[in-house]
Amino acid sequence: MSPSNRKQALIPEGADILPNRSGSAPGIIWQPVPNVTVMTFPGVPAEMHLMWRETAVSYLKNKGWCCGTIYSRTLKFWGIAESALAEKVDDFLNLTNPTVAPYANHGEVKLRISARAESEASAKNLIEPIEQQLRQIAGLDCYGADTDTLASTVGQLLLDRGETLSVAESCTGGGLGAMLTGIAGSSGYFLGGVISYDDRVKEKLLGVKPEDLSEYGAVSHQVAKQMAAVVRSSLNTSWGLSITGIAGPSGGTDAKPVGLVYIGLAGPNGDSHSFEYRFGDARGRDWIRNLSICTALDRLRRYVIEEYC
Amino acid sequence: MSPSNRKQALIPEGADILPNRSGSAPGIIWQPVPNVTVMTFPGVPAEMHLMWRETAVSYLKNKGWCCGTIYSRTLKFWGIAESALAEKVDDFLNLTNPTVAPYANHGEVKLRISARAESEASAKNLIEPIEQQLRQIAGLDCYGADTDTLASTVGQLLLDRGETLSVAESCTGGGLGAMLTGIAGSSGYFLGGVISYDDRVKEKLLGVKPEDLSEYGAVSHQVAKQMAAVVRSSLNTSWGLSITGIAGPSGGTDAKPVGLVYIGLAGPNGDSHSFEYRFGDARGRDWIRNLSICTALDRLRRYVIEEYC
Repeated sequence: MSPSNRKQALIPEGADILPNRSGSAPGIIWQPVPNVTVMTFPGVPAEMHLMWRETAVSYLKNKGWCCGTIYSRTLKFWGIAESALAEKVDDFLNLTNPTVAPYANHGEVKLRISARAESEASAKNLIEPIEQQLRQIAGLDCYGADTDTLASTVGQLLLDRGETLSVAESCTGGGLGAMLTGIAGSSGYFLGGVISYDDRVKEKLLGVKPEDLSEYGAVSHQVAKQMAAVVRSSLNTSWGLSITGIAGPSGGTDAKPVGLVYIGLAGPNGDSHSFEYRFGDARGRDWIRNLSICTALDRLRRYVIEEYC
Repeated sequence: MSPSNRKQALIPEGADILPNRSGSAPGIIWQPVPNVTVMTFPGVPAEMHLMWRETAVSYLKNKGWCCGTIYSRTLKFWGIAESALAEKVDDFLNLTNPTVAPYANHGEVKLRISARAESEASAKNLIEPIEQQLRQIAGLDCYGADTDTLASTVGQLLLDRGETLSVAESCTGGGLGAMLTGIAGSSGYFLGGVISYDDRVKEKLLGVKPEDLSEYGAVSHQVAKQMAAVVRSSLNTSWGLSITGIAGPSGGTDAKPVGLVYIGLAGPNGDSHSFEYRFGDARGRDWIRNLSICTALDRLRRYVIEEYC
């Protein structure tokens, strides 16, 4: 054991240890003098979060140091701008308890409904009718709430329907698969796919026709559709979802600028579709890739609900 | 245009606009009374960051409101614990200008060297000899500095050597490919690969032998090696890199617990290797997947340098 590990093991006399499940530095709870309580946590953010949730929250509650409850529920939206959503739910933004507040980041829009009450149960009772009205107004633009993500919502939809999904990714390079498999239990509906970043992979593993690549280009309706259709049939899944686009910063032309993305979708009845998006070049590579992934998931979500539910 | 967009376009009399390249709400610079300057930014974090970098920084500098410079350079490490590194560079942690401070998060360790000086140039002069000494001490554990990532470092190494890479991913579901293609210019060395999340994809697209899957299991030295070797030869790349493991929270057994990960590596001379890691079940699914991806990149980095450089 190194001296710095020994130092991490030292605690003030009379302090209690908060165990660190995910690292080496423990936290402490310490009352150096009456009516003063000190709690310390490790500096590594992920370790701190875990320790806070697992030990500090229950400690503070047990001590009775939490009076009343502020409980929030966050509705999540994709495919609608913050200003357009705020317009639609304008009347709700002036409520006082619960309050409704809009948030936006990287294409996702959220409405946080927060209620203040004596207990969590009564806060939830205040929130519930507001949530129902907001969902009614938003329709399909609302994809979930709280810990839901587009990937978990799509996953649940497929699981409920007993369907499976495979992907073929160009400019996102595996990010769609990574987001899908970020959900525990995704093996119940996600089989895998192909990262066809280079055109040689599109030809070799997806059988995209060289003449289509040269005639229409890799970033085109035609290739997006082929990618989705071939990965679906090759892996024998209900759905195939593909992304091909120009994430930049280079590689754009006047005809096909940075931010141009095609999403391909092949469905259970054997038909395939593609959708064009122009995300522009201002947001940068990471953002374009993330928009592409989320939009692909949202595209699949809407298509399944609109056509099959 | 919706009323809420109109509201975003209102600014105080006499204020200057900070243009918003990535969203709709502009920022302002405003001197309501002498010697008081107000700057506002949009609430969307990514828009704020971009606007700050592009307009606020140069404005503050031009006004001469920045006295002296604090310049930092951050060395980045993988494969060494924070406490072990701190031990090795103990003497440097008490310096006063520049200062050297260790940071750690999710397996990555950093040393930030910060100098205070009249100009950026003289701050850099203070930092440079310290950086050289730290790099000397750390050896291969230091993979880069500042904006370098394991993916960019590996990419530069491959680019310098004129070599190419393909991947085969199971538990990371595309995250390794996503990290590699997060680097602009990665098309110069990264071709793509296979997301073989389900065993059927391992058989169908990677030709992993069914008898190996049933005898050794998908999470094994044997399958990791086959995945790397087959994706390499199938896509005709210099290197093949694979990941197969148990990310949890379920799916673990006594013999193969959550956190058990194999990384496979197939090289230009046709040989393939695999490496076993046990990341434990305490850190959770996201963390295990991220550790797997970074460790795979680091494994390739070290192998290339140790065997070929």
